[in-house]
Amino acid sequence: MKRVRPIQIAWKPDKKSSTPVYRQIVQYICDKVANGEWTIGSRLPPQRALAESFGVNRSTISTAIDELTSYGIISGKSGAGTQIVSNTWSLMLPTKPSWKKLISSGYLQENNRRMQQINRLEFAPDIIRLGTGELDPRLFPQKMWTEVLQKMSVEITSLGYAEPLGILTLREAIVEHMKQFGINVSTKNVLVTSGALQALQLISSCMLEEGSTVFTEAPTYLKSLQMFQSAGLNLNGISMDQDGMEYWKIAKQLQKSESSILYTIPTNQNPTGITMSNARRQELMNFCIKNRLPIIEDGAYQELCFDGESALPLKAIDDNGMVMYLGSASKTLAPGLRIGWVIASEPVIQRLGDAKMQMDYGASSLSQLVFAEFLQSGKYKEYLIGLKKILKKRRDNALKTLEKYFQDIATWDVPIGGFYIWLTFNDDVEVDDLFERALDKGILLNTGDIYDFKHNRSLRLSFAYLTCEEFTAAMRTIRNGLY
Amino acid sequence: MKRVRPIQIAWKPDKKSSTPVYRQIVQYICDKVANGEWTIGSRLPPQRALAESFGVNRSTISTAIDELTSYGIISGKSGAGTQIVSNTWSLMLPTKPSWKKLISSGYLQENNRRMQQINRLEFAPDIIRLGTGELDPRLFPQKMWTEVLQKMSVEITSLGYAEPLGILTLREAIVEHMKQFGINVSTKNVLVTSGALQALQLISSCMLEEGSTVFTEAPTYLKSLQMFQSAGLNLNGISMDQDGMEYWKIAKQLQKSESSILYTIPTNQNPTGITMSNARRQELMNFCIKNRLPIIEDGAYQELCFDGESALPLKAIDDNGMVMYLGSASKTLAPGLRIGWVIASEPVIQRLGDAKMQMDYGASSLSQLVFAEFLQSGKYKEYLIGLKKILKKRRDNALKTLEKYFQDIATWDVPIGGFYIWLTFNDDVEVDDLFERALDKGILLNTGDIYDFKHNRSLRLSFAYLTCEEFTAAMRTIRNGLY
Ligand SMILES: Cc1ncc(COP(=O)(O)O)c(C=O)c1O
Ligand SMILES: Cc1ncc(COP(=O)(O)O)c(C=O)c1O
Repeated sequence: MKRVRPIQIAWKPDKKSSTPVYRQIVQYICDKVANGEWTIGSRLPPQRALAESFGVNRSTISTAIDELTSYGIISGKSGAGTQIVSNTWSLMLPTKPSWKKLISSGYLQENNRRMQQINRLEFAPDIIRLGTGELDPRLFPQKMWTEVLQKMSVEITSLGYAEPLGILTLREAIVEHMKQFGINVSTKNVLVTSGALQALQLISSCMLEEGSTVFTEAPTYLKSLQMFQSAGLNLNGISMDQDGMEYWKIAKQLQKSESSILYTIPTNQNPTGITMSNARRQELMNFCIKNRLPIIEDGAYQELCFDGESALPLKAIDDNGMVMYLGSASKTLAPGLRIGWVIASEPVIQRLGDAKMQMDYGASSLSQLVFAEFLQSGKYKEYLIGLKKILKKRRDNALKTLEKYFQDIATWDVPIGGFYIWLTFNDDVEVDDLFERALDKGILLNTGDIYDFKHNRSLRLSFAYLTCEEFTAAMRTIRNGLY
Repeated sequence: MKRVRPIQIAWKPDKKSSTPVYRQIVQYICDKVANGEWTIGSRLPPQRALAESFGVNRSTISTAIDELTSYGIISGKSGAGTQIVSNTWSLMLPTKPSWKKLISSGYLQENNRRMQQINRLEFAPDIIRLGTGELDPRLFPQKMWTEVLQKMSVEITSLGYAEPLGILTLREAIVEHMKQFGINVSTKNVLVTSGALQALQLISSCMLEEGSTVFTEAPTYLKSLQMFQSAGLNLNGISMDQDGMEYWKIAKQLQKSESSILYTIPTNQNPTGITMSNARRQELMNFCIKNRLPIIEDGAYQELCFDGESALPLKAIDDNGMVMYLGSASKTLAPGLRIGWVIASEPVIQRLGDAKMQMDYGASSLSQLVFAEFLQSGKYKEYLIGLKKILKKRRDNALKTLEKYFQDIATWDVPIGGFYIWLTFNDDVEVDDLFERALDKGILLNTGDIYDFKHNRSLRLSFAYLTCEEFTAAMRTIRNGLY
């Protein structure tokens, strides 16, 4: 079966082409493997010989070989020489076009490297995470959790495929829960998803047409941008002032002919911490009704308004099914549950539910039941009160720290809840440079340029992940390193 | 704000158009609402007046109104008349093209109605489900479950976002677990997904190009077809004999120019129960290597081969990364966990993992930890031994029942495991008709035509959902109703 023909090369890359030479070589070899001329087990000539045949220098060969190795098409066990080891799945990796489109598009690629670096470093031991968008794991309500799981351990007597919209008990609990935010709907208006992120995916892939425009706040939640982009939507970032999105700037960009939607995080926005004022909310709603611009309202941080500081969701003043609301258990209780929900009109929920069933059959029933029990037992409510007290204290401490150390060189707004403070330096503190210097001291920063290249003088600070002491110490270190 | 202009109609549908008249009216009204001429709150003229304006009869108007109501664009509260209630999200429902493509494509639409009927009826009380692809909930290992959840209730001290490929403990447990099936890989070759279905979605959307061809067994797992189709892939069903897919029939349909893959459920196939013979497996592998046809092996029923009856996965004889293997906890333990996994080469897993993170951040950590504990504690193994004993008894009883009541009018094969027996009637028993008659007796059948219109003399029987007594009684009822 395994007759291996010796490899012959009678081809040279085109040095005048706009495609880099090493890419041409990668493609040439992929083609040879794909069309079966070079079979599995074939040995490539040594790099020196390859360089000669192709008429290129060694380093170009070496780059091409590295790339082919990373796809798993060849394996370069030293000694044995380089060999073709796969001719199927791996060959698809370099070619799938929409995926390439996805990761190579615009500025998302630019910040990809920095973002990947941050993602990796977040798992490093002892790193101090000053900008992480996650709750401090030490705030996990361990006792309640144990009680809930113990109850579930005897109450769950089977775990079949769940109803298309999500387990009814959970949808009932969500309906109850949303009332405090002025949202009055029925269980048929609720779809349970695997986190708010999946809700964005469902909406992008089954409600929006490719080529539509999504207006978002700029800067905004990074993964939402990736999601919209991978669904083939055009992004249009709208700047914010202290009252939220400057929606009037949309007007001149609205084209009658193409469909558009608006994505907003009106409360405790990620990454700026801005909460849209009530007046702005009403104006925005009127603008969207007039321009027939449907709204996705991301309420991931809605439930984290501190005592005495609150904001009603847009959905609460939505008489016309203009707003689709997204909720999530990730920022309050636990991202690992992967529970989110969508609130919308019945026919919209119906379609999203159909799509969800096609994609993965719905969120984990176990997660759904656990979150339902948290809501229904009143434990979630009780926990949230305590959590908000702690976060408020942490915010106040963060603000005090900033006043003490950064008054002279930066500005920031006071968030009414959530996780974030958006710090902007007055003069040209290079956050890129700052990132490296902070890292040297073991501190990981989420620099503004990740979210929007224009924001290269800003930092997203999170007071949710660190204790007051840890936050203050880290900020002091950064300040001291600055001059 | 809410100035409502009276509605004027000066347009008539084109009765010679190939678009049905009611559809034209729906589109006309949608357009008026979308372009803002008819505002929210506008009242439609009474149906009689509409019929006159459009020059059509009342029943056509009524169909159009029903459709618009189902989208949530108008609301027909009786008394108040019909009113425009939404001008945004709902308007997107009738137009989103790829979704329409999805649900209107080919024979999948045909069986859509029957399938939806079955999905609905499965939740009806007291219905006897003779073809359901789920394990009997009474076989849920309650005691083990309680032990596992109680352990988790104290062991889990936080639930953050999980690692991209899935929680390491679970991947380690899966690596260990797969060894008994001759699959020896490392944790870097494993990606945890929200069920095998999501694995299919990830592969379809980020490895395969639109317009590629997927060769599948015919008939096959219905949702896999929907998934492939919604990713824009062409389906090509290949018939089976008792040894499995007749792969040689692929040869003449392989076009050099376009990329193709093969999807197979070689062991205890859904819906036929056929297990591919070892000889056929080796032949198929050789064929695929020769033709560079990558394989998706769906092992959803792999772990359910009864004692003394077994089959090694294709992945176990795969030296070249030709095979991507899918596993699932759904058919053995609990579909509600939504846990599945992919086994493939490292670069492929890496890309699928990236895509997964973009879509929903990974499967529920809670589900992952619970399944890991089942595997690592040995509970899963112990449970599976018991489960297979019960299923084997149920299969033997099912075969005895068939011999007793259906010997003269039908044929079937003996499955070596899994859930299903594929029954084919000798002469023209109309399964469509049979479906209705069985339903009258409270029995729900999965008729063959759901899976493939050619199979309109077949039934998918499941011995996994009912006890021996229930199965026999239901089959007896069906037999008695036949003549
Ligand atoms: C604004 C916003 N929406 C949604 C999410 C993701 O939520 P989930 O974990 O529910 O997918 C995040 C997480 O960072 C977020 O910041
Ligand atoms: C062949 C096959 N693969 C996959 C699945 C779905 O598995 P999961 O629940 O893991 O998505 C099924 C369920 O019916 C099936 O029959």
